[in-house]
Amino acid sequence: MNAEIIGIGSELLLGQIVNTDAQFLSQQLSFMGIDVYWHTVVGDNRSRILEALRMATTRSDIIITTGGLGPTMDDLSKETVAEFLGMELEEHQPSLKRIQNYFQALGRTMSGNNIKQAMFPREAIVLQNDNGTAPGAIIEKNKKVYIILPGPPAELQPMFINHVVPYLTGKTKSGIYSRVLRIFGIGESSVEERIQDLLLEQGNPTIAPLAASGEVKLRITAKASSRQKAEKLIRPVQGEIENRLGNAVYGYDEETMESVVINLLRAKKLRLALAESCTGGHISDLITNIPGASDVFLESCITYSNEAKIARLGVSPDTLMKYGAVSHQTAREMAEGIRKTSGADIGAAITGIAGPGGGTHEKPVGLVYMAITGLTDTQTRELCLGGNRLRIKYGSALHLLNWLRLHLKG
Amino acid sequence: MNAEIIGIGSELLLGQIVNTDAQFLSQQLSFMGIDVYWHTVVGDNRSRILEALRMATTRSDIIITTGGLGPTMDDLSKETVAEFLGMELEEHQPSLKRIQNYFQALGRTMSGNNIKQAMFPREAIVLQNDNGTAPGAIIEKNKKVYIILPGPPAELQPMFINHVVPYLTGKTKSGIYSRVLRIFGIGESSVEERIQDLLLEQGNPTIAPLAASGEVKLRITAKASSRQKAEKLIRPVQGEIENRLGNAVYGYDEETMESVVINLLRAKKLRLALAESCTGGHISDLITNIPGASDVFLESCITYSNEAKIARLGVSPDTLMKYGAVSHQTAREMAEGIRKTSGADIGAAITGIAGPGGGTHEKPVGLVYMAITGLTDTQTRELCLGGNRLRIKYGSALHLLNWLRLHLKG
Repeated sequence: MNAEIIGIGSELLLGQIVNTDAQFLSQQLSFMGIDVYWHTVVGDNRSRILEALRMATTRSDIIITTGGLGPTMDDLSKETVAEFLGMELEEHQPSLKRIQNYFQALGRTMSGNNIKQAMFPREAIVLQNDNGTAPGAIIEKNKKVYIILPGPPAELQPMFINHVVPYLTGKTKSGIYSRVLRIFGIGESSVEERIQDLLLEQGNPTIAPLAASGEVKLRITAKASSRQKAEKLIRPVQGEIENRLGNAVYGYDEETMESVVINLLRAKKLRLALAESCTGGHISDLITNIPGASDVFLESCITYSNEAKIARLGVSPDTLMKYGAVSHQTAREMAEGIRKTSGADIGAAITGIAGPGGGTHEKPVGLVYMAITGLTDTQTRELCLGGNRLRIKYGSALHLLNWLRLHLKG
Repeated sequence: MNAEIIGIGSELLLGQIVNTDAQFLSQQLSFMGIDVYWHTVVGDNRSRILEALRMATTRSDIIITTGGLGPTMDDLSKETVAEFLGMELEEHQPSLKRIQNYFQALGRTMSGNNIKQAMFPREAIVLQNDNGTAPGAIIEKNKKVYIILPGPPAELQPMFINHVVPYLTGKTKSGIYSRVLRIFGIGESSVEERIQDLLLEQGNPTIAPLAASGEVKLRITAKASSRQKAEKLIRPVQGEIENRLGNAVYGYDEETMESVVINLLRAKKLRLALAESCTGGHISDLITNIPGASDVFLESCITYSNEAKIARLGVSPDTLMKYGAVSHQTAREMAEGIRKTSGADIGAAITGIAGPGGGTHEKPVGLVYMAITGLTDTQTRELCLGGNRLRIKYGSALHLLNWLRLHLKG
């Protein structure tokens, strides 16, 4: 089975928004083993929508439209699909009631325009929208399936997952289950090299590297009639990959480096404090993105100036003079200083040259020192990173979090 | 004139990457007054690329392909366009030399595959790639223009700006010049209301709201034969908008809130220190993204715990007990404390409830207090923000920076 995605909306053609719906649907369909050969985008224009539907119908089994389900005259998707299929629109009472309730809950009255959003061909399976007013629809005709979805990702994604995936799974007779392994510290080509034989001999489950920034992701996808059966297929492959990549596999599925670190701290009942220089608060920012971070994260001192390193952390002026702010010695004193002054169990510190200025022949842009203390003796580490200021900030932040993870795992 | 964008690459159809190239090109073309009616995406597949080219040629003046210019057998874009146009590929010596030099500079030898990247039809204008090995091309045939661009945004975007825009500007006979006004603190619909008459009567220049997160952007675009003439058209419109929106216009073009604040601090020779609680380091992270921030930014204390607020900033335990960590009083003591202990000219502080936990009936999630001291008497302000944890973190960070900007402007 193959599918084609038609994005409808002038805001896509003006470049006001990027077509994340096409990406999301392509990813989901590919997990289900449904091939996607075409994406098309057209504006809110009847004749071009008709042309796109005509082309799609000649070459694809499943035609999915996104967008153009709003209440205004500009929104033409449903009307044009119905016209193309020779079907009439009529009021779908459950949808009309839901839209009325939606407005009532907001203390507003429904405008006459919104009635349009409850009009569907009698032949359609109407898909409830739990996050907005526009329902979607599935229509079968001449062995082709037309799926009409709203444009906003917050409406489209849950509608697809909750209503379209079960429908398509019924069509494909078996479900698709997957696990993502998240890997840090080994490059993509090196990961592929280490599991090349597994990549070559794959069948069910399949193994696919996913594009990711600053890390590598591998998705293991099994086709099976139940989650348990899929789990049985995935587990040995996952185990083999983990054996080969060892500690570099830091998390699964939606986990992030910072959530893994927070969970380890929580499990071990350890409290962390940070001293950041070159990362400028980025590590604290990541950590405090996780709800409940305050249970294990006490504070961070962003000691950007030498004075702050001395006053806040007790770094010795002699050390700064003799070795410089970017050195093993300063990183060590920062980590020990933040631990001591904060009362945390673990102190971690980072100092480096993020650029573009400030580099020298001996200490180039990208040179970074990290230190961790409290779990063992103070340990320090040197990194040499490439890229611009932001890559160095973000990259070194991940390196420190990963190193902290390895320490916590013992 | 109208254009069509054909994205070529299986990674787009698998949803591994999102089609940002189509967004970038659509935006650029729209600024130039060139309409885009179609986006298409196909895989690395000769017959589907040919089909896409055939369709595009029947309906568009300018056909732009993105991607598929790599060195491997899978990369078919240039070969297939040449086949479609009935042209032969031959070695383009300047490109071959550039690719050889590129590898030499990296200390690697060029693989035979890369020769393919220097093959072009004799009829093509070859576009130099300053950020990779794959050159692009412009080919004119039968009054249609075919533009072949590499896929990676870091290669495509500078190539388009530096080589394609001048070419297309020559075609359209006049240049397009624009200025973006960046606006904070007034919602999009309210901005549109205040300038509705200008939006309705616009001609040359045009005024367009751009999608943006956490702020509003207006782009003023003039068509003129020189930058000076465009400037003369833009200036009065810009002045009128600024009159109506006042202080809410915080910057222009590529400026960000944090770069504006850094520039104001630098101009006034004032040094800043921060005390962050609910934003968890996000404000420091933004500020230190700007090269040279260290000239005016001394430090930040991310005092997530009450202990840290007391120990680092000298917030009184009585204040915390009596008013709570999220209060005017605590924000005030945090700002005064960070200024005093850091020696900075200006102290700014923020404390709030980012959620999802921690809210109460009296102090709900989204309640935030800010304080600034050093420029005038200490001032505090209350915010009530909606949304999830990240929106509250990011939104309140921008509010503090904006308030700081207004203070600095006097």
